[in-house]
Amino acid sequence: MNTKNLSEGFMRVVSKCNSFLDQGSPWRTAVSSSDLHPEFTGVFRLTEASSRKECRPFFIENKQVGLIRPDILAHLKPYTDVFHIPYSQGNDNIKVHLNPSLQTFEERSEAVEKVLLDLREKDVFKTLRGWRDEYFNIWYKFSEPPLMKMERAATCLFGVKQYGVHINGWTRHPTKGVCMWIARRSKTKPTWPNMLDNLAAGGLSSKHNIMECARSECQEEASVPNNLLDNLKPVGTVSYFYEDERGLFPECEYIMDLEVPEDFVPENADGEVAEFYLWTIQEVLEKTITSEFKSNSALIAINFCIRHGLISPDDEPNYQQILEGMHAKLT
Amino acid sequence: MNTKNLSEGFMRVVSKCNSFLDQGSPWRTAVSSSDLHPEFTGVFRLTEASSRKECRPFFIENKQVGLIRPDILAHLKPYTDVFHIPYSQGNDNIKVHLNPSLQTFEERSEAVEKVLLDLREKDVFKTLRGWRDEYFNIWYKFSEPPLMKMERAATCLFGVKQYGVHINGWTRHPTKGVCMWIARRSKTKPTWPNMLDNLAAGGLSSKHNIMECARSECQEEASVPNNLLDNLKPVGTVSYFYEDERGLFPECEYIMDLEVPEDFVPENADGEVAEFYLWTIQEVLEKTITSEFKSNSALIAINFCIRHGLISPDDEPNYQQILEGMHAKLT
Repeated sequence: MNTKNLSEGFMRVVSKCNSFLDQGSPWRTAVSSSDLHPEFTGVFRLTEASSRKECRPFFIENKQVGLIRPDILAHLKPYTDVFHIPYSQGNDNIKVHLNPSLQTFEERSEAVEKVLLDLREKDVFKTLRGWRDEYFNIWYKFSEPPLMKMERAATCLFGVKQYGVHINGWTRHPTKGVCMWIARRSKTKPTWPNMLDNLAAGGLSSKHNIMECARSECQEEASVPNNLLDNLKPVGTVSYFYEDERGLFPECEYIMDLEVPEDFVPENADGEVAEFYLWTIQEVLEKTITSEFKSNSALIAINFCIRHGLISPDDEPNYQQILEGMHAKLT
Repeated sequence: MNTKNLSEGFMRVVSKCNSFLDQGSPWRTAVSSSDLHPEFTGVFRLTEASSRKECRPFFIENKQVGLIRPDILAHLKPYTDVFHIPYSQGNDNIKVHLNPSLQTFEERSEAVEKVLLDLREKDVFKTLRGWRDEYFNIWYKFSEPPLMKMERAATCLFGVKQYGVHINGWTRHPTKGVCMWIARRSKTKPTWPNMLDNLAAGGLSSKHNIMECARSECQEEASVPNNLLDNLKPVGTVSYFYEDERGLFPECEYIMDLEVPEDFVPENADGEVAEFYLWTIQEVLEKTITSEFKSNSALIAINFCIRHGLISPDDEPNYQQILEGMHAKLT
């Protein structure tokens, strides 16, 4: 595959991961989209349907923790004891507040859970059909105590940020150079079954355990032994903001690199991975731009290649655009 | 120095490098600044004076290449044969176009140069007192041919993007761990004299030479021998957007890491560096948050520490905010 195809593919991945963002730059706010260079609008064409301008901020304790799409907001309106939606202010100015009389983590979590169970019963939202019985915390700021917890499948209804950890497993092959371990997700995963992914990944459910979470995902998903886990190196984050028919997904993934010896072979222990492949960088990059690769994981593999000097800024025309697009501003 | 002081310092560096950006995030556009958490406005307080909303886009060949501040625009108005400023449209809608009859790189560069020399003569702009007789190209997209060239000191008047390259020199010290080579800029540098900087850095003046430019800066500024230059590793970009009394500075720096042997000592060859220091990571980080360190170079040293696992996401409360802030969207 030639460089041009790869480069265009990388931008499609960036664009797909950022379908919610279409006016985020200082340049683009100054002009209407019709003034943009055709190539530009091409790259960002997926974002034209973004609901961004219609979304309303969602507050807990006067701190904005999310954004709610109008189609979703309409269904929350009846639950006046939980959500305060002051329609009288005029549509443009609506701010959704969680009832301030719900003062503790537990009270808030319980009240919202009741609403969500009712909405699930009514089968109003597609995303709630994928109810996982797994809680995600809601933070204003990730380093502060969480304000409440919420069923994982419901967080996209409120556009609250989700945090996760992704691990790039890699090795130096004597003849093939740097190679990466790529996982094929199991067919039974509730989200993105059968797709390609990084060595290991998982959602972060509490605040002080990013490294711990990475360690346990490596153990459960890839049977990485303890002595190798000491090689886990935190190397940054990748952030992006997409939306689909289920809701809004502002996500921040903490990235770890894990160098493993040439003879290490990952083995799945929890049934979440069907298979692992050891691929050259060229093989990995060619896969990242296909629909086989989970998009955010593709972004993370591309990020690995950039950080390791495996993509040259002289050869990749969208080098800077790719880096901007994998560090979307979520705060 | 404790972690909290460092963390607050890192955010000051991020904020200083992004003084032009105050509403760039999907969250913040949805709310007025008075709705923001006090801590948030604290972090971004430097940006309150941003001229962003008043700036007008600057086009060449119908492609937006920059932004012009109103105080600067007023002085360009008389040069009607070079700049088309259609005031009749109403102030909010003004787009500044370079006269489309200037059709080639040379014609455009020459016409603008005449205006700039006249403005320099009139001593209208502080930045033109620092005329350097060094041209910077103006690109719509860095991977495409440049549209014109312009005196380096004038680019901030038009808010055109500047590209550069910064090199992190580092070594593995047997007892102190990872150490970085930090330069003290010479007292005679026209910008930021005497301040701390990365091992080597320079502006990019033509399109296909990012790696070449890095090599020659390493040779001229630090006398890195050829055999070590092969270790130069491109590892990404850092981008940010600041403004000061001179004008607007949207900048994208291509970052290289250069691992050097323990016994290598850099020596300046072009008079631009006064001294080099080999510092531990703790020493470097403590310096980055002082006014001694050139702000964008401080950001790049912090970026190095994040990529090398030397700052832990579990210990640094602003980890994600720092990463967002060093990858500002400039396209």
